[in-house]
Amino acid sequence: MPDVILAPRNKEEVAQVVQVCAENKIPIVPRGSGTNLSAGTSPSNGGAVLLFKNMNRILELDEENLTVTVQPGVITKTLIDYVEGESLFYPPDPSSLKISTIGGNISENSGGLRGLKYGVTKDYVLGLEAVLPNGKIIRTGGKLAKDVAGYDLTSLLVGSEGTLAVITEATLRLIPKPSYKETILAMFKTLEDAAETVSAILAARIIPTTLEFMDQGTIQVMEDYKQIGLPTDCEAVLLIEQDGAIETVVKDIERIYQICSNYGAIDVQKAETEEEAEDLRSARRDALSALARLRPTTILEDATVPRSKIAPMVREITRIAEKYNVTIRTFGHAGDGNLHPTCLTDIRDKEEMERVEQAFEEIFYASIDLGGTITGEHGVGEMKAPYLEWKIGKAGIQVMTAIKEVLDPHNIMNPGKVFAKSTKERLVMANV
Amino acid sequence: MPDVILAPRNKEEVAQVVQVCAENKIPIVPRGSGTNLSAGTSPSNGGAVLLFKNMNRILELDEENLTVTVQPGVITKTLIDYVEGESLFYPPDPSSLKISTIGGNISENSGGLRGLKYGVTKDYVLGLEAVLPNGKIIRTGGKLAKDVAGYDLTSLLVGSEGTLAVITEATLRLIPKPSYKETILAMFKTLEDAAETVSAILAARIIPTTLEFMDQGTIQVMEDYKQIGLPTDCEAVLLIEQDGAIETVVKDIERIYQICSNYGAIDVQKAETEEEAEDLRSARRDALSALARLRPTTILEDATVPRSKIAPMVREITRIAEKYNVTIRTFGHAGDGNLHPTCLTDIRDKEEMERVEQAFEEIFYASIDLGGTITGEHGVGEMKAPYLEWKIGKAGIQVMTAIKEVLDPHNIMNPGKVFAKSTKERLVMANV
Repeated sequence: MPDVILAPRNKEEVAQVVQVCAENKIPIVPRGSGTNLSAGTSPSNGGAVLLFKNMNRILELDEENLTVTVQPGVITKTLIDYVEGESLFYPPDPSSLKISTIGGNISENSGGLRGLKYGVTKDYVLGLEAVLPNGKIIRTGGKLAKDVAGYDLTSLLVGSEGTLAVITEATLRLIPKPSYKETILAMFKTLEDAAETVSAILAARIIPTTLEFMDQGTIQVMEDYKQIGLPTDCEAVLLIEQDGAIETVVKDIERIYQICSNYGAIDVQKAETEEEAEDLRSARRDALSALARLRPTTILEDATVPRSKIAPMVREITRIAEKYNVTIRTFGHAGDGNLHPTCLTDIRDKEEMERVEQAFEEIFYASIDLGGTITGEHGVGEMKAPYLEWKIGKAGIQVMTAIKEVLDPHNIMNPGKVFAKSTKERLVMANV
Repeated sequence: MPDVILAPRNKEEVAQVVQVCAENKIPIVPRGSGTNLSAGTSPSNGGAVLLFKNMNRILELDEENLTVTVQPGVITKTLIDYVEGESLFYPPDPSSLKISTIGGNISENSGGLRGLKYGVTKDYVLGLEAVLPNGKIIRTGGKLAKDVAGYDLTSLLVGSEGTLAVITEATLRLIPKPSYKETILAMFKTLEDAAETVSAILAARIIPTTLEFMDQGTIQVMEDYKQIGLPTDCEAVLLIEQDGAIETVVKDIERIYQICSNYGAIDVQKAETEEEAEDLRSARRDALSALARLRPTTILEDATVPRSKIAPMVREITRIAEKYNVTIRTFGHAGDGNLHPTCLTDIRDKEEMERVEQAFEEIFYASIDLGGTITGEHGVGEMKAPYLEWKIGKAGIQVMTAIKEVLDPHNIMNPGKVFAKSTKERLVMANV
C-alpha cells in the first residue's frame, strides 16, 4: 500500500510533487491503470503513487505533421479510436489497451499483436515532456522525423518503467490507416509445421500485420471454453492477418494460404466477413480469459526469442513444465518470437508456487540461451529484476545502474524496480 | 592531427586499445570514412584515431529472422547492395553511402532520402556490441523485435557520436525489398504551392518513399551545371518517389500527379524508364556537386523543422542570407522537414566567414523557434556543440553530461564533441 495517492492536474503540479518527494526522499510510483504484468507499478517501498486521471486529454492532432500530442493518462483505446476516426493509425496495441494508458505504454515500451509489421511503442514516440528526479522539466524530441541533437533521451525514457522521470506529455507519430484487412486461421498437426510456415511466409518476403500462435494446451482450453470448432488434436494454431491496400492484401493472403497448405496445415479458415474475422481473432484474443478459468492463479510471462527459435522454445517450455509438474500453456506473437508461457496455478499452495518459480527461471534461462530475452513487452518491474543480469551481463547492469544513480541519486523514482538487490544464481542445466 | 592511428582487427584489440587509453587518459576518436559533416570525427584533442578497415566484414545474413550482422567498417552501399541481392532492403541511405561506413552511420544516426517512409538508422539497429570507456564489452538487444530488458542502451549508443563507447558489431533489421518504384519531378511557381502540395499528399494519407525539395537558387545552379531542362523561374522543385507493390505504387503516383496539378504545379515529369528516373533523381542528387562548383568553400547544414514549417523556414533562410549578404541555397528532404541550407563561401575570407557563422546561428535559432532542431541527420559534432542547449535546454544538457561523465569519467571517448565548453548566447530577434 502507498502512503499517499496523488492525482496531479498538470506538469507544474507533478514538478512540485517531485520536488517535495526529492527533499524528503519519498518514493514516487507513477501509475497509469496498473495493468503492468511485472509488478512495475506496485508501491512496494511505500511512498506516493501518482495517478494521471486528471491528465488524460488528447491535446492536439496535427494532420500536417501526422502527430498526436497527449497527456499520459489517455486510455490507449481512446487514442486509437480517435485517430482512426481521422483515417490515421496508432499501431501499438497491447492486450490491455481497453484500460491501459499511453503513459503506462510508454513507460513499459508496450508491444502488442501488430508488432511484427509495425513495431512497438518506442517506434511511435517522437517527443516527451518529463519531470526529472530533481523536479526540473525536460522536453525531448519534437514533431520531427529526424533529430540527432545529442543523446536520444526520448528512447532512454521509453521503457524506463518510471525509474528515471515522470512523463507528463508525449508527441506520437501516426501513419495512414490501412484501408483493408484479411484474416485467416490455420491449424497444424505439429509445432514444427507451424514454425516452418512462419519462416516460409517471411522467406516469401511477406510481413503480415499479425502472426499469432497458440499451442495445443491453449487450443484445448479455448475449445472447452467456447466450442468454436478448433481441432483439439493439433499442436499449433496460427492466426494470420494482413492489412494495407486491397490488391496487396488479397495477393499476400492468397500466397499465405498457399504456404500454409504446402507446409502441412490440416485446415485453413478464411474470414469472409468482419464478423467471421472477429470470431477467428477471438480464438486467440480470448486465450488468456479461457486459461484463467482453470485455476485460481494465472501467471502470464513473456519470454522472447528470435522468431526462428519459436519451435525449440515451445518444446523447451513443454519439457520444463513436465519436469516441475506444473501446468503451462503457451500462446503469443509467433511473428516476433514474443511468447506468453502462461502458468495456471494457485498462489495459496506454497510448494507448488516454488516449483512454478523454478520452472519460470528455467524458461528465462532457455530463452536467453536461444538468443532471446527475459521480457519482450511486459517490462522487468520487480518480478524479473533478479534475472536482468542474465540478459544484459554485469557490464550492462553497471551501465544501467550508473545512469539510474546519476539521474536519481536519492533513488526516489519507482525504487525497487528494474534493478534487484541481488541477481539469481544461474543453475547449470545440461540439456539447454 | 592524431598522435596515433590504429586499425584494430577485432573487439579484443579494441578493448585493449581502450584499456591502454583509459589508463593513460588518451583521447580515442572512432572514425569510419570521415564523411561526417559536423567535425565529429576530427581528432581535435589529439590522441588515437581508430579506423575500422580491418573490421569491415558482413558476418551473417539471417534470412529467417531478417537480420544482418556486420562489423562497423562495412561500407553502407556494400551492405545495401548485398542485402538487395537477397531481395531484402536496408533503407537508411545517407548521401555519403558510397563511402560512409555502417559504424559511422550508427554513431551519427544517419538519415537519408528514404527517411520519410522508412525512418532512419536507429529504426534498423536491433543490437550492438560495444567497448565501454572502461574497456569492458557490452552486448545490447539481439535478433529480437521486442526486448524491454532494462534501459534501451542500443538507442542510447546510436547517435552518441563515439562519445560513450566504441561500436564493434551491429545486428540490423531488414525488410523485404519493395518490388516496384515510380519517380516524378514537379515544378512550382511558388514555394507555397510546393509546400501545400507536400501537405496535400500526406493529407491524402499517402507516405511517399522520397519527397525531396530544391529551391530556386539550387535549381538555377543545377540547370547551369547540367542543362536538364529545369525552368529556372520556378521557386521550387519536388522529386517524389513511391515504392512498394506495383498496384499501390501506380495508384499512389497517379493521385500524387493529380495533387501536384491541383496545387499549381507548372510542370510534372514522370519517368517512364529506370533511365529517365535516374535522370530525374540526378536533378536532386547532384545538387550539392553543382553548388560546390560556385565558390571555394561549401558549408552544408541540416536545420530541421516539422514538415508543415518548410515554406516559412525556406523564406527565413532566404531572408537571413540577404541580411548577412551571403549565398545560401536550400535543398533537402521536404517530407521530413530536414532541410540542407548550403552556404557557398570562401574559408580564406575571414570577414565573410564571420557573416556566414552569424547567418547559420540565426538559421538554427529560426528552426528551433519553428519547433525544429539544430541537426536532423548530421550530428552535433564539434561545430554545433555551442548550439545544443538551444534545442534541449539546460536540464537536457545536464542529463546528457551526467550520462557522459558517469560512463566516461576521464573523458577519453571523442572528447570535445557534442558538448561545448560554453553555449552560444542567443540574440534577441524580433522578426522570428
